[in-house]
Amino acid sequence: MPTVDSWLLPDGIEEVLPEEAARIEAARRQLLDLFASWGYDLVITPHIEYVESLLTGAGHDLELQTFKMIDQLSGRMLGLRADITPQVARIDAHTLGAEGPSRLCYCGSVMHTRPRALSTARSLIQLGAELYGDASSASDIEIITLMLESLDSCQVKGVHLDIGHVGIFRGLTQSAGLEESTEQALFDALQRKAVDEVRQLTESLSQSSLAAMLCSLADLSGGVEVLERAHILLDGAPESVMAALDDLVEIAQTLSRQYPDIPLYFDLGELRGYHYHTGVVFSAYIAGVGQSIAQGGRYDDIGEDFGRARPATGFSTDLRLLVERGTIAGGERAPGIWATYANEPGLQAEVMALRRRGERVIVALPGQMDSEAPEHGCDRILRWRNNAWQVTELNN
Amino acid sequence: MPTVDSWLLPDGIEEVLPEEAARIEAARRQLLDLFASWGYDLVITPHIEYVESLLTGAGHDLELQTFKMIDQLSGRMLGLRADITPQVARIDAHTLGAEGPSRLCYCGSVMHTRPRALSTARSLIQLGAELYGDASSASDIEIITLMLESLDSCQVKGVHLDIGHVGIFRGLTQSAGLEESTEQALFDALQRKAVDEVRQLTESLSQSSLAAMLCSLADLSGGVEVLERAHILLDGAPESVMAALDDLVEIAQTLSRQYPDIPLYFDLGELRGYHYHTGVVFSAYIAGVGQSIAQGGRYDDIGEDFGRARPATGFSTDLRLLVERGTIAGGERAPGIWATYANEPGLQAEVMALRRRGERVIVALPGQMDSEAPEHGCDRILRWRNNAWQVTELNN
Repeated sequence: MPTVDSWLLPDGIEEVLPEEAARIEAARRQLLDLFASWGYDLVITPHIEYVESLLTGAGHDLELQTFKMIDQLSGRMLGLRADITPQVARIDAHTLGAEGPSRLCYCGSVMHTRPRALSTARSLIQLGAELYGDASSASDIEIITLMLESLDSCQVKGVHLDIGHVGIFRGLTQSAGLEESTEQALFDALQRKAVDEVRQLTESLSQSSLAAMLCSLADLSGGVEVLERAHILLDGAPESVMAALDDLVEIAQTLSRQYPDIPLYFDLGELRGYHYHTGVVFSAYIAGVGQSIAQGGRYDDIGEDFGRARPATGFSTDLRLLVERGTIAGGERAPGIWATYANEPGLQAEVMALRRRGERVIVALPGQMDSEAPEHGCDRILRWRNNAWQVTELNN
Repeated sequence: MPTVDSWLLPDGIEEVLPEEAARIEAARRQLLDLFASWGYDLVITPHIEYVESLLTGAGHDLELQTFKMIDQLSGRMLGLRADITPQVARIDAHTLGAEGPSRLCYCGSVMHTRPRALSTARSLIQLGAELYGDASSASDIEIITLMLESLDSCQVKGVHLDIGHVGIFRGLTQSAGLEESTEQALFDALQRKAVDEVRQLTESLSQSSLAAMLCSLADLSGGVEVLERAHILLDGAPESVMAALDDLVEIAQTLSRQYPDIPLYFDLGELRGYHYHTGVVFSAYIAGVGQSIAQGGRYDDIGEDFGRARPATGFSTDLRLLVERGTIAGGERAPGIWATYANEPGLQAEVMALRRRGERVIVALPGQMDSEAPEHGCDRILRWRNNAWQVTELNN
């Protein structure tokens, strides 16, 4: 756990000390290597941009979360990124301009003006992967699978998966021709699973079948069997709604086959990131952590504001949370070699050679005693013995 | 080179595309591993802090360079870090509180409100190492050596080293009892090597020997022989000045022996970071780049504002500049394997196994043709042949 120094650092902003930093670095490498092995190319996005760019597309919901400052060069307003996804979408849409599907990944800090629900952190190390240019559920499955493999590679145990699809609610409200204010009220009621309110808001609809379907969403949550019930309750719904349901069935089948041990939970009233997402949405949870440990979804056409509408799906996670909740191998500091101080060309060459062989070698500074070696994590010592530089156990 | 999209990104703020990002990631790992092999522990410092913390100690000169924003939680002013060094000094002084020497390193983005001289960039990836708790020139030598090894590991060629020591000028002005305004004017004149001005500013000094010594600084620049001339011209100077000179001689001897091919250039009037540094200062240059490619120096007692004065010396570099000017091995994307699309458990297992063996495998999405494999960097293909999944050359 990091040491938080409340009088020096703002609430929710933390520094990371060596032990945790080593684990974060190990996890970072492991996950970026995993992404690379799936064909995802790393990009590095700027920490600050004009607010209009940051709050475009997927960024609409980020206004309140985004720190603002004035650009001395242009006099314009800049924002500190609160999410990397919209930036990567810009790179895909505008800068790279690939014709076919493209796969990008990223890892970097994001800052929030206020902590998100159920968390106190305002600074996350966001790591994620995005797949552009393909609208089929094959991409969603690839992204969900990559998310589960990422959690597994960090040995995060006891993962369960929540899956929803905003296309179902959207298809129904569009077909019902609801006014925006009613749609918003309905959305809020569904999030609270306030069935009575949902019923009230839909009773004036001319098509009573649509009203019934909207009401049923509040109740359509649970295991895979929910999808069968949905097929019955949403029978006759607009085509886009049935297509969304088909997507969910395909995802459920593939995931159940590949990850039989990971519980799947479907919630057709779950509309996380409704203004941003356009299709499947998913979150991974583990016991004892209120917020999701990784999450994502489809957000087609996000690049439109940057000149090119593209299908898109992706996931992200907070590397610090992952490291805190998982078990990262390789983050431990290897026992080192202590070299007694001597301004001696022979010593220097010997030390360099040991380091090149992968050893951690700490050269003592003038006045340091060999007895200090253990507190610097050294278990051996480099000394001049029998006319040669030799590495021996510390207590020999 | 990155693609700069001027209408979308602020001047001097750049996004990094896959090819360059891969080289930066490779260099980052290589250098952090080098630092680890020297016993330097990684820390991660916050991107934003209260401005008072950021501008404390070594941060005094950063006021104009630091973006400011209001903290919604506390109502206080926050700054976006423009330099990581003062933050790491805080961790050493305040958070870690080690008694003996400690070695820390870091890598992260910093932002500047305005580009520094000779550069247009306002966003750097600062990477550096700091050694605390030892005041001897052995630490300075360790840090300079680590800097040179870092440049060498990135194959930055044709490095030459500029070395100065702010203790010489400071010792002379303190001994002369100059007023702050005169000292500042003298400092400015020396930076411009305006010998006449220096003479004018010092002619009223009661001790004419000190005046002569201050004048001689403008002229004391060149190869190692400068140190011999300095010993003559500064003969009789205050003890702290002679000690500074002795430090430089020791550094010169050690570096000339270890790096006979790296030209050393001494400049006793060079006072880079005068308000911040307290001892040796050094910069590495290469032909064709106006600004230094790596730099550092001693800044003792920087932690005082955080409750503990400690000797300190360190260096930093901009990872992007290093990657641009050096040759990083290992940043290339390995040729991958293309897997034809099929929602097929056997294929999935085969793909996972190949990835675990370190292969980059891209699974085609519905509708993608095998002919697209080369544009995704694949030179082989995974297909069902003779009743088994087989990897073959692309054109077989």
